[in-house]
Amino acid sequence: MDGTPNDGYGTNDGYDASDDGASEDGVRDDSAPAGGPGPDVIVIGAGPAGENVAGRCAQAGLAVAIVERELVGGECSYWGCIPSKTLLRPGEVLAAARRVPGAAAAVTGSVEAAAAFARRDEMVAGYTDDGQVPWLRDRGVELVRGVARLTGRPREVRVTLTGGGQRLLVASRAVVLAAGTRATVPPVPGLADAEPWDNRSATGARQVPRRLVVLGGGAVGSELAQAFRRLGSETVTLVEGAPRLLAREEEFASDEVRTAFAAEGITVLVDTRAVAVRREPVQPGQPRPEVTVRVVGPAGESELVADEILVAAGRTPATDDLGLTAFGLRPGGFVEVDDQLRARAVPEGWLYAVGDVNGRALLTHLGKYQARIAADVITGRRDIVGQPARDLADGRAVPRVTFTDPQVSAVGLTERAAREAGLAVRAVRVPTGGVAGASVRGTDAVGTSMLVVDENRRVLVGATFTGADTQELVHAATVAIVGEVPVDRLWHAVPAFPTVSEVWLRLLEEYGL
Amino acid sequence: MDGTPNDGYGTNDGYDASDDGASEDGVRDDSAPAGGPGPDVIVIGAGPAGENVAGRCAQAGLAVAIVERELVGGECSYWGCIPSKTLLRPGEVLAAARRVPGAAAAVTGSVEAAAAFARRDEMVAGYTDDGQVPWLRDRGVELVRGVARLTGRPREVRVTLTGGGQRLLVASRAVVLAAGTRATVPPVPGLADAEPWDNRSATGARQVPRRLVVLGGGAVGSELAQAFRRLGSETVTLVEGAPRLLAREEEFASDEVRTAFAAEGITVLVDTRAVAVRREPVQPGQPRPEVTVRVVGPAGESELVADEILVAAGRTPATDDLGLTAFGLRPGGFVEVDDQLRARAVPEGWLYAVGDVNGRALLTHLGKYQARIAADVITGRRDIVGQPARDLADGRAVPRVTFTDPQVSAVGLTERAAREAGLAVRAVRVPTGGVAGASVRGTDAVGTSMLVVDENRRVLVGATFTGADTQELVHAATVAIVGEVPVDRLWHAVPAFPTVSEVWLRLLEEYGL
Repeated sequence: MDGTPNDGYGTNDGYDASDDGASEDGVRDDSAPAGGPGPDVIVIGAGPAGENVAGRCAQAGLAVAIVERELVGGECSYWGCIPSKTLLRPGEVLAAARRVPGAAAAVTGSVEAAAAFARRDEMVAGYTDDGQVPWLRDRGVELVRGVARLTGRPREVRVTLTGGGQRLLVASRAVVLAAGTRATVPPVPGLADAEPWDNRSATGARQVPRRLVVLGGGAVGSELAQAFRRLGSETVTLVEGAPRLLAREEEFASDEVRTAFAAEGITVLVDTRAVAVRREPVQPGQPRPEVTVRVVGPAGESELVADEILVAAGRTPATDDLGLTAFGLRPGGFVEVDDQLRARAVPEGWLYAVGDVNGRALLTHLGKYQARIAADVITGRRDIVGQPARDLADGRAVPRVTFTDPQVSAVGLTERAAREAGLAVRAVRVPTGGVAGASVRGTDAVGTSMLVVDENRRVLVGATFTGADTQELVHAATVAIVGEVPVDRLWHAVPAFPTVSEVWLRLLEEYGL
Repeated sequence: MDGTPNDGYGTNDGYDASDDGASEDGVRDDSAPAGGPGPDVIVIGAGPAGENVAGRCAQAGLAVAIVERELVGGECSYWGCIPSKTLLRPGEVLAAARRVPGAAAAVTGSVEAAAAFARRDEMVAGYTDDGQVPWLRDRGVELVRGVARLTGRPREVRVTLTGGGQRLLVASRAVVLAAGTRATVPPVPGLADAEPWDNRSATGARQVPRRLVVLGGGAVGSELAQAFRRLGSETVTLVEGAPRLLAREEEFASDEVRTAFAAEGITVLVDTRAVAVRREPVQPGQPRPEVTVRVVGPAGESELVADEILVAAGRTPATDDLGLTAFGLRPGGFVEVDDQLRARAVPEGWLYAVGDVNGRALLTHLGKYQARIAADVITGRRDIVGQPARDLADGRAVPRVTFTDPQVSAVGLTERAAREAGLAVRAVRVPTGGVAGASVRGTDAVGTSMLVVDENRRVLVGATFTGADTQELVHAATVAIVGEVPVDRLWHAVPAFPTVSEVWLRLLEEYGL
């Protein structure tokens, strides 16, 4: 790290990023195709996925232009993973210390919200992209600031420049959509008028609301509910329409997070939906009026009163204004792609979509992965055995970590998803807290570890690890799935004692090895 | 966990252990071969390795007797990994919290030694094995408390019983040596007379010495030096004869630990050896007199004065009194074994040695692994393709974690060891602290991650991860090595963002993928 905390997060990680302050401008107002040669590749959106596809194409020698309407670094760097994990970390590490006799007594305070917000500001570089731009420049990628739209002609993009004017870009090879998503605001009467928080307002908060209602119990809602409870919210109520939190993970994960939330005073209402939201108009300069949320659940209707309401009810692709109609794609929809990240609907394969915008897996790391694959397809790079690049992870080995405490870290298929996919699987589970490695880290170790094994091939197809700080346990499972390492061979991969990774030994014993 | 923290640590982990208080005695004083059928297997030593070989043989239906002269659970459970990691943890978690803005201000104290010692006492179950014995009993293993010695006839063991008397045991199949090791006291004049601490006295300490000298900068010496510094020792001086700490790990690991030690006031003297030790005789009931250590190093001779001197200068196999001579084995030496854990020198293959006593890898997890393999060899269990069990980990995929802060977590070969083994390797490295996942966990993230790739086979042969809390990063590398997953395939194993496991992505990019 070079002292600029957010250098290239989401794409690169700063240690090799220079920050020499040169300007990327000077590409302003040519409104017709450039007189000189155009770029080989145009990338729309400079979030993690866009940056990576641009950087990798440029490093292979292609001329690349990337168009960004907001900040280079995208949602993840400023309004997503980075600030949310930064806000969660103080509560997590203090909870960890309180579980350690010999350390617990040294913790006399609770999370200091002002300091956490200040660190968040540092991590998002004050919501400027000065730290990220050099990464593109160093790779020779041309940054065009503005709003891009496909013209309807192949490989042609018109940019309404941020500084005024327009510019027409024509790519010789490919256009890559990496426009990302934004928070979905569900059509609950009164909700939009109530000026609800979304991931941007929540991760960017400068005050801790005394009472917070969160709509949506997926990863974003669950994480932020706990973050604000630990930052000091007196009441946090999480409203989830499904019967459980984190509905796409194993059921025990949902149960364990819910139990932990209950223990720290977070109210979870499942099978419950908001039906009406009311807030008096917000007046500039005045305190925001309280908000009333009418919910319907198993116990009937009731009203929640809060200071803020956070919407964490899924993501909507930012494709409504990209000029997709001309190519038979639905504005506002996800852009369906093949395993080479090409838009299926578009002939000749010049249009790619990477990251959230293709709807495959709305996760920064998968977006970056798709970006690397797409770049290799565009540049014609082949793998060691001469095969063209293709996406081998999506749908098969997608890791995801929910950074609640306990954490939920998983990869591949849940047991249910595997059965629904027609696989003959056997799942085994052990308590994560049952290994010595968990006990030496503190008292009251919780959690469950599970492997899902395809019995025909005797390879893993899924794994879940819940508990304190399980985030690094999952990569071993990802390697095992992607490497198709048979469980009989995994038996010889010895976990170190006393680490929490010894759950691997217990799991394979439980499996019968 | 069922509330008995040390249930079966080192072998099992308590969550399935019953603790019903029944006695395992009643096998006392028959001094001739039993009238009834003897055991199939005799195991000498009930540490982690012994327990595991006994338990696994018994679960396969064999009659097993295990002989223990001290406590069931062995060195690791009472005087090794468990107490040392328990004493390190408070300092580690407080250091972690101090690096997190938003949490740091809540940490107003330092490590409370009395509470750490109390937790240690809990983790070692007050130095009783009541929590471990049921694990053996549940598996039908007969526990014989006493000192075992091979008689000189095949498969025959005489036990001098702890309660008095002798008992002769004759195994129908196998005898397994799992006698472990003890601290080596090097022949420094005056050292033995100075009543130095070893791992037992140090991990069992009830007071923090004001001034501590540690002889030996391997994992044990380095860990305990830092543990006591953080528990409150005013001066800690680590004396190491080699040019660096942790001499068998990558050089950067040694450098980083040394830098960290310097920053927290631990003096490290390398290329330095103790040549004389003096202490006035220790009088019972009186304060222990201070100890003077004469050392010779690059700057000549000097004297260190301390309150305790800890010897962490390697391990000596506990084989001096096992009756080895009759079988051509050297008393006091390691028992060399083949890949099925059979003593090479002994015909007919009835004598096995597992764990520290065979000298292959003095690590609890490897001892347990060897135990599982040996049990499968003894019981004739074959793997999925019909092959007899054999040790595939030793010498190839041995993970080890030094629980200092920063941690040093490694598996397989170092770059140097790989070259010395004649492999054409290429090593790549990146800063562990350079990924976003490290920065969201706190400021000042340090460390280095390295992969060593066999260029002919394009598979990993080694990996090292240094930094805060890298202990769970290494298992992914162990899986990759054991699974022989080509780096081109590892490229598709996507680490989750923002976890520290993203060093995998950076490393493979650095490699050229």
